[in-house]
Amino acid sequence: MAPWKRADAGATQPRRPGGIQQCAIRTSFHFADRKNAIWISRIKVSVFFPGRQRMEFPSWIELVERNVAKFGDLVAGIDPSLADIPEFFGHDGQWIERFVDFMIESIEGRVGFVKFQSAYFEACGLAGLTALSAGIRKARAAGIGIILDAKRGDIGATAAAYARAYLTPASAGGSGDFEADCLTVNPLMGPDTLEPFVECANCFGKGLFVLCRTSNPGAGWLQDKMTGNRLVSDRLADLIAAMGADANSDSRLNAVGAVVGATVPHEGRRLRQLLPRSIILAPGLERRAETPQPFTPCAATRQATC
Amino acid sequence: MAPWKRADAGATQPRRPGGIQQCAIRTSFHFADRKNAIWISRIKVSVFFPGRQRMEFPSWIELVERNVAKFGDLVAGIDPSLADIPEFFGHDGQWIERFVDFMIESIEGRVGFVKFQSAYFEACGLAGLTALSAGIRKARAAGIGIILDAKRGDIGATAAAYARAYLTPASAGGSGDFEADCLTVNPLMGPDTLEPFVECANCFGKGLFVLCRTSNPGAGWLQDKMTGNRLVSDRLADLIAAMGADANSDSRLNAVGAVVGATVPHEGRRLRQLLPRSIILAPGLERRAETPQPFTPCAATRQATC
Repeated sequence: MAPWKRADAGATQPRRPGGIQQCAIRTSFHFADRKNAIWISRIKVSVFFPGRQRMEFPSWIELVERNVAKFGDLVAGIDPSLADIPEFFGHDGQWIERFVDFMIESIEGRVGFVKFQSAYFEACGLAGLTALSAGIRKARAAGIGIILDAKRGDIGATAAAYARAYLTPASAGGSGDFEADCLTVNPLMGPDTLEPFVECANCFGKGLFVLCRTSNPGAGWLQDKMTGNRLVSDRLADLIAAMGADANSDSRLNAVGAVVGATVPHEGRRLRQLLPRSIILAPGLERRAETPQPFTPCAATRQATC
Repeated sequence: MAPWKRADAGATQPRRPGGIQQCAIRTSFHFADRKNAIWISRIKVSVFFPGRQRMEFPSWIELVERNVAKFGDLVAGIDPSLADIPEFFGHDGQWIERFVDFMIESIEGRVGFVKFQSAYFEACGLAGLTALSAGIRKARAAGIGIILDAKRGDIGATAAAYARAYLTPASAGGSGDFEADCLTVNPLMGPDTLEPFVECANCFGKGLFVLCRTSNPGAGWLQDKMTGNRLVSDRLADLIAAMGADANSDSRLNAVGAVVGATVPHEGRRLRQLLPRSIILAPGLERRAETPQPFTPCAATRQATC
């Protein structure tokens, strides 16, 4: 008996939390049997990352399996901007810390994943980054899967430094300040610049979301262009699938996922065919809240911002 | 009399400092007459950025003109990695601060520009970012032009947050912790995602280096591909030239520059034709130190790492 089914292969809809409806994530699968699924998750640990180090915390894939089973397919996006938040949080130097605290407490036990948008924390300088560090710690203690949306990308040694910054545990040489479970990365510079991220993710049981077809209006300027007989976004999807497959050859889900905007369901359907085992982060969904299930065909991991 | 000449139009070579030879920057021009050049620089202030706010510090273009005239075309790259530095700096929590301090003091009065590679500071967590902030302050106080190599890129509001983080003075709503003179940015997501950076740069007299053709071995995987009848890197160069031209229609140099690897002189020569007024940051030069003037045809801003 298969204890799980792909959402894009079956008719059953993924579970939804009763809580924050404007924040959504969906993975490419759901569990038909929670107990079996958890058991499978435990068995899989030994084969997902044969070379990875023994970790104190669950791997990204384990987190996805466990938290989707418990809470459904939602991600709460935290993009703290002083102009957008109620005065309740105050306008002194500590507002961002209070806001992040409040958000984590609000989603704990209701939503399985949080996505911190790094830019907003960086915009607040060292105080913002201190709040990000505290938010990551608090989310981890609450068992929430942590996605850091930082869209990093650079040549070899520098990409390795970014991977050390955001995917390496303190026990393995990381600073311990910004360790996430999953990081968004930018592939413009080429496959060799993704490799240090993939190696680090495999070593420490982390996940990646590689930009593939983004949600912004100008995304098609480059990503929808043909190179030879392939679209740029299709070539990126091929690369993402290949890197994920190399990493976890006998897992059902790849730790190397993709960012595909929920604003482009046509492209999403096409890219899903190229990424059958990838978890897809699909931002921009909130703009289509009036349309029921606009991205079901993508079977994508959805994200919208609180 | 023209007080300056483009290096790509004339036979005279740009000046070189006698100091740190492994660190190099070259701009697209040199000064035939320092006194006149400075005078022109002063006159230009009022027309470069008609909409920009009154700033305490010189604009990026002013810095380029002034510091190239004084020190030549070198940039010192600071990429602090504990594994690569002498034990002299210690291996406690403060090594990075000591290293950055030492580097700034070493280059002060000898090199006109510094490039901080953000990844290495981020890899050291909050201590690293505190050292970055201190390094930026120290470099500014020393009159050194500050390039922050962070390769940021994201959709509209998030790109604006990154611009606030790294290009906005504290007096205009920035945190004051990481204000650079020039920032590297990633254009994969499309022209609309560059606009917030360009707007911010124009407003505050800052500069940008947009990735165009990078120096890594796998760069050609996407950047050298044809889309229609144009290479991806050529389309990026067109975009960079257009954005720079919009910003400073009557200046000789554009505040929106490009990253073109010094490891690819063939591509560099072609891209220079498309970017006649851009300052080009050309990393990877140190690997070709044995070849005299390998990038002269690019007339590019060169960078190598100390």
